[in-house]
Amino acid sequence: MTTKLDRAVLEAMDEHDALRSFRDRFHLPDGLIYLDGNSLGAMPKAASERVRHVVDVEWAQGLIRSWNQYGWIDLQQRIGAKIGRLIGAGEGETIVADSTSVNLFKMLAAALKLRPGRRIVLSEPANFPTDLYMAEGLIALLGGEHELVLAEPDDIESAINEDVAAVMLTHVNYRTGRMYDMAKVTERAHRAGALTVWDLAHSAGAVPLDLAAAGADFAVGCGYKYLNGGPGAPAFLYIAKRHQDTVAVPLTGWFGHADPFSFEPSYRPATGIERALVGTPPLISLAALEVGVDLVLEVPMNALREKSVRQADVFAALVEQELAGFDFAIVSPRDAAYRGSQVCLSHTESWPIMQALIARGVIGDFRAPDILRFGFTPLYLGYAELWDAVGVLRHIMESGEWEQPAHQVRLKVT
Amino acid sequence: MTTKLDRAVLEAMDEHDALRSFRDRFHLPDGLIYLDGNSLGAMPKAASERVRHVVDVEWAQGLIRSWNQYGWIDLQQRIGAKIGRLIGAGEGETIVADSTSVNLFKMLAAALKLRPGRRIVLSEPANFPTDLYMAEGLIALLGGEHELVLAEPDDIESAINEDVAAVMLTHVNYRTGRMYDMAKVTERAHRAGALTVWDLAHSAGAVPLDLAAAGADFAVGCGYKYLNGGPGAPAFLYIAKRHQDTVAVPLTGWFGHADPFSFEPSYRPATGIERALVGTPPLISLAALEVGVDLVLEVPMNALREKSVRQADVFAALVEQELAGFDFAIVSPRDAAYRGSQVCLSHTESWPIMQALIARGVIGDFRAPDILRFGFTPLYLGYAELWDAVGVLRHIMESGEWEQPAHQVRLKVT
Repeated sequence: MTTKLDRAVLEAMDEHDALRSFRDRFHLPDGLIYLDGNSLGAMPKAASERVRHVVDVEWAQGLIRSWNQYGWIDLQQRIGAKIGRLIGAGEGETIVADSTSVNLFKMLAAALKLRPGRRIVLSEPANFPTDLYMAEGLIALLGGEHELVLAEPDDIESAINEDVAAVMLTHVNYRTGRMYDMAKVTERAHRAGALTVWDLAHSAGAVPLDLAAAGADFAVGCGYKYLNGGPGAPAFLYIAKRHQDTVAVPLTGWFGHADPFSFEPSYRPATGIERALVGTPPLISLAALEVGVDLVLEVPMNALREKSVRQADVFAALVEQELAGFDFAIVSPRDAAYRGSQVCLSHTESWPIMQALIARGVIGDFRAPDILRFGFTPLYLGYAELWDAVGVLRHIMESGEWEQPAHQVRLKVT
Repeated sequence: MTTKLDRAVLEAMDEHDALRSFRDRFHLPDGLIYLDGNSLGAMPKAASERVRHVVDVEWAQGLIRSWNQYGWIDLQQRIGAKIGRLIGAGEGETIVADSTSVNLFKMLAAALKLRPGRRIVLSEPANFPTDLYMAEGLIALLGGEHELVLAEPDDIESAINEDVAAVMLTHVNYRTGRMYDMAKVTERAHRAGALTVWDLAHSAGAVPLDLAAAGADFAVGCGYKYLNGGPGAPAFLYIAKRHQDTVAVPLTGWFGHADPFSFEPSYRPATGIERALVGTPPLISLAALEVGVDLVLEVPMNALREKSVRQADVFAALVEQELAGFDFAIVSPRDAAYRGSQVCLSHTESWPIMQALIARGVIGDFRAPDILRFGFTPLYLGYAELWDAVGVLRHIMESGEWEQPAHQVRLKVT
């Protein structure tokens, strides 16, 4: 982009935006510019009504009968299948369950079991910490015969050797937005006889995915970011069909039993993806998730991605145009082919700067140690808002507003 | 009870019932007699409003800021502490997390790690199946050096030997309602150097518990039964203070990290009970749980238990008085000291009989192979309803209504 950007240019982009009408499907607070849908997606207006129905009708009136009457018993399968369509999974390869962390444990354990004798879980140092933590916990539980080996993103492929059981990566990095070539890494893993476990937390609903074409083995993902499923929405997981008959998921709960309500004394895994279920799911949160997923399914993923790329490019250009001299560095890849739906800046004073932004109604987030993270959610974010957000940031830097004591206070959640 | 019971006697008991006013705090569908609060508790009226606030205000308006602003970040601790008061736990010994099944895996793994060299997990064949399944999965994951040994309830204490690492029992049996003497079994386990893992699914909010006095080591429990937390409500767990500094919980997620938002690359367990947290909790379901717990906390547990015992006694007496000759057997203990808050009948035709009852608005549940289960929830169940329920059952038996083809159809959830 060589033309100078101004608000009028961005307003024109909004006017021609084919996805513009989707904004009305969300509730968005007045006066807020929300660049944090990659942390917690905004609320689809229909979610409010759906949750009310689950509580006031299905729970209150239907009580236990709602398991059959309102299909609660199949909800994890149904929403899982819908998410499968968003990520290019085949039929019966995805299901909703537990949290992303718990699912990662399940999928990684399953992968290691399929590769006995291989010692290494390969990941990267800047992976989302809970993924590394869960791998550590699993390895400790297994007696310490495995090892978590961390390689930098550029070195991952060359680090895959015959001793690697599983390559465990987050497809889009939570901090930098850097995106792996899933097909390429998976192909490299398979050539060495290793399996892949992909974390799609920052990918599902944000970038086009084709897990089938990539030959992915296992994956997990998050419901409350780009899927707009509500705070702490249940997560999902994916197991390639070819592994489903042989895979052992270590959390063998009754929902994963071949016949849960026969109350057999011994575990018999369900056929297919259902064996990855564990306990009773949190129905109210689960129902809200479906509304978010349904909404994303209405949008052609290519149109969504196109707008996302353009928004990230515009934002990066605005940072360069408007914030020169304030010592921000763009740490996300400039090449969209390797970038998710976010742009991150580094700055030595990231913490108070982000607090000052939030105080003025521009919501992004701080990620330790020095990152300002801005996520783009094309379904409800306009181009002119990017101009306004960068304008507020410029004002904060010019005025020194970020140096106010109030903005130095650390909160529990950052 | 030797006096003949009739509806007038039971109406009088309702009139003198000190807990009677609590019924108005719940939503209960017209014309339904709900004897299944031990499967899914009824909805507290306040839950509807609370959920609406979480969705329409905290999520929709507050968005990511609600983690601090509305205390989402401490909700698992806060509700856990409240449940702790219901079960006689000390401060900081309980927390809300995941599902009962997942928590059982965590607690059993933690117990086994504290007893290296010991091989046996001791339980009973009629334990709730998911508990046995989770133990099987854990044992398989650990390489098969452990063994799940099952002893009948009367033989449990004598089966505890020096090779037992953990005694894993459900305090009140889901099918028969039989209740263990927690202090006695725990004392016996400790004498042999074993640890206890108690499942309180059918105890919490139903019977007085004193985990501290019993010397319990680990426990898990359910939010959606007697705590009225809503369908699939998050579960809770308990770790005795004395184990908290040394215990290793194998699902080492970021919410259990000493400093989750510093995004450190390696896991460092939080001090205390927080190390048992894993991933982001389902906030909407979690908020509903708190309403149910708050309501139970308003009631003196002794008063609740007294009514529960009386309701079970009345129900059993009514079965004997009104249903003689129809081949029902009462399989729950008649001595309340060994019975939870339910009475179960066996009958060769339990399935169609329960379907016929449900069709007439008397909701209990069928438990394979031949059990009709009736749960008593003193907060919202009246004595006269017991008369009416048994009356409907008598009508169904006398008329042969249960033999209708419609009642033979098996549903997914039973």
